[in-house]
Amino acid sequence: MRPTDFILAKRSGEEHSKDAIEAFLSGYLAGEFPDYQVSAWLMAVCWRGMSATETANLTAVMAASGDVLDLSSLPHTVDKHSTGGVGDKTSLVLAPLLAACGATVAKMSGRGLGHTGGTIDKLESIPGFQATLDEAAFLRQAREVGVVVSGQSKDLAPADGLLYALRDATATVASLPLIASSIMSKKLAGGARSMVLDVKVGSGAFMKTERDARALAELMQAIGENEGRSVAAVLTDMATPLGHAVGNALEVREAVATLRGDGPGDLTELCLTLAEQVLHASRLDCDRAAVEQALTSGRAYEKFEAWIAAQGGDPASLDSLEVAPEQEGVFAMRAGVLTGVEALAAGRAAGALGGGRSKKGDRVDLGVGVVVHHKPGDQVAAGDRLATLYHRNDRGLDEARRLLEGALTIGDRAQTAPLILSVLPPRS
Amino acid sequence: MRPTDFILAKRSGEEHSKDAIEAFLSGYLAGEFPDYQVSAWLMAVCWRGMSATETANLTAVMAASGDVLDLSSLPHTVDKHSTGGVGDKTSLVLAPLLAACGATVAKMSGRGLGHTGGTIDKLESIPGFQATLDEAAFLRQAREVGVVVSGQSKDLAPADGLLYALRDATATVASLPLIASSIMSKKLAGGARSMVLDVKVGSGAFMKTERDARALAELMQAIGENEGRSVAAVLTDMATPLGHAVGNALEVREAVATLRGDGPGDLTELCLTLAEQVLHASRLDCDRAAVEQALTSGRAYEKFEAWIAAQGGDPASLDSLEVAPEQEGVFAMRAGVLTGVEALAAGRAAGALGGGRSKKGDRVDLGVGVVVHHKPGDQVAAGDRLATLYHRNDRGLDEARRLLEGALTIGDRAQTAPLILSVLPPRS
Repeated sequence: MRPTDFILAKRSGEEHSKDAIEAFLSGYLAGEFPDYQVSAWLMAVCWRGMSATETANLTAVMAASGDVLDLSSLPHTVDKHSTGGVGDKTSLVLAPLLAACGATVAKMSGRGLGHTGGTIDKLESIPGFQATLDEAAFLRQAREVGVVVSGQSKDLAPADGLLYALRDATATVASLPLIASSIMSKKLAGGARSMVLDVKVGSGAFMKTERDARALAELMQAIGENEGRSVAAVLTDMATPLGHAVGNALEVREAVATLRGDGPGDLTELCLTLAEQVLHASRLDCDRAAVEQALTSGRAYEKFEAWIAAQGGDPASLDSLEVAPEQEGVFAMRAGVLTGVEALAAGRAAGALGGGRSKKGDRVDLGVGVVVHHKPGDQVAAGDRLATLYHRNDRGLDEARRLLEGALTIGDRAQTAPLILSVLPPRS
Repeated sequence: MRPTDFILAKRSGEEHSKDAIEAFLSGYLAGEFPDYQVSAWLMAVCWRGMSATETANLTAVMAASGDVLDLSSLPHTVDKHSTGGVGDKTSLVLAPLLAACGATVAKMSGRGLGHTGGTIDKLESIPGFQATLDEAAFLRQAREVGVVVSGQSKDLAPADGLLYALRDATATVASLPLIASSIMSKKLAGGARSMVLDVKVGSGAFMKTERDARALAELMQAIGENEGRSVAAVLTDMATPLGHAVGNALEVREAVATLRGDGPGDLTELCLTLAEQVLHASRLDCDRAAVEQALTSGRAYEKFEAWIAAQGGDPASLDSLEVAPEQEGVFAMRAGVLTGVEALAAGRAAGALGGGRSKKGDRVDLGVGVVVHHKPGDQVAAGDRLATLYHRNDRGLDEARRLLEGALTIGDRAQTAPLILSVLPPRS
């Protein structure tokens, strides 16, 4: 393998064989090929693209580059991935809901970066919660409780970690095959047999159009199916934050309310849809009505408490989670209809208050954030409280207020998009 | 300057400002931006291209990245660049010919790489010749003799040296703006006011079509003119080696014969044309007839002897230059017309005998090489000697013979291309 031949092949628009991809990436992981050859290749991939087969092969090689979790002894293993949104606390609700329906959720999750939150940060706002588990404890909890969520191991798809860092530094993040292989390499190494992908569309999401989101979803389905996984996908709107709360502890509070049957309509609807799809993909005999029943009966909430307790959290603390003690309102300047709550700006507002990371390793204030009290389409009167900023010692308050005021628009008529744009069942 | 913004701009097809190029390259030279960011940018340039203005700005920044020779005290400074061919000993003839016509040739030249030779290697086959001169000696000889040729200083356009090494390792060599800026950055830093570019076209050249060669020539003219230089260009055929000899000492022998009025027609014609063009660009009152007179009168050869002597060589040795002592013939298998002498294969044959480098720093046997006795279009009889291989102890002989036999084709009718395809006078 001469790396220049490999780069030249992609530069010329050729398709790589799986053997060639394996030789290139293993040479890179072994330190034989330098970063500068890999980054030139990454840019050539952005230029020329990759076929679905090529992308599936790249993903399989990346997934096999480190540890691969063996979940084969567990029944109906399921996983879910979201491409990242604002106020997306879905995993907190979905994981126990799926376990309550008979599936096993043994899941690795990430931390937040930029304007999007991460499940592990949210869980860590629960006092005592332990996100770091060894493999034995992880598998034991999956078997005994039916649900376990831990932070992502560095040994899971290490090729992805290296490539992602390089892409981030070389303006090669935006590429359908590179995005799809990055996501799916971790999902494949994570070991679940069935999964549902929540591909976000809109200003707060990486994919700005439904067309791009669909292409990404279908590519990820093809990759999963190539490795014998059953993959459903749902395209959902991310023009507006999901639910009302944006910020770690505030989002856990909202997830708890949802599990108790008292959550925002959009969040509840999305959780039910994702659950229905992945349970169907997993061939569990559990239809929409049965999923709703698992939620309304309180069984999902019981699973949630058992899960949190198994990872060291105190379920009793859930009613008094610490949030930032100081609050300020944002009020309507005029009467009318709320026409938009711009997700990206709302996410940045929560970040400005100290709730987000601009780079890996930044400390996050788990108590701060934003609650938006209305949804697009709601009628508001002048002076109505539209949103509340939860801050600590005024940190970032001016910037967050400016961002949030810009995010909330009032007009005469709202054009609201449906939350669920499309459902793509497994294709095999 | 955030390097990712710069890379992303090119990835998106935007045009860089000169300030941005300067900030990026100076950050790279200072070691602030790593190779992997630069190589991703180079691939983005291969993808999106660069405008003529952008390329001129890139070249100016590269030229200014190190020493810039000040030749302003010398009259009519001229330079010549060839994009590299097989058997191209033009500089050896042209430099003294131009000096004999009143121009000053103060020139830096390179060493051979791959199948193309380098002027410095050829000169070093003359016993005693010194290619390493300090700046004072270089300028003094230019003033006193009118011609000096030295090896390229590492401090001349160091940005080009770094970028070229990176391009070579990342399959980003083939790019019009990158090729043009690489060549012209060294020419600009070399200080001559007028220059002629010999852009080769054909199997033995980097540019395979006249269209590509013309685009490269015009781009280099625009770059030079942007910096106030007068630049002529000539597109010439490189399907067939220039002259008869390929190999360092063998080529010097042929250059000497040409300077004595007894050289191959194609080589003589090319030297006269290049001289006429660059003298015209330099506004010297010296037309074609005057150039021919400088050659036929022996004045050019006198300049040659003075030049070689000034750099430590012994002119008396020129008649007995050491070439490899063992020779083998390649003979015609049938009667007919020589239809082709494939330049690339002939260059590789000389390389196989030990006369070329596959990588920088390889030692070269200056005495070996190939002499092709016929030109395409010549009638040959079965058994005629078509070429001679000059080898040492059979080194590479089988491979060279195989290559050369494949390079010489006999048929019933030859389609011969003109040597000089196009002349592009300075545009300003």
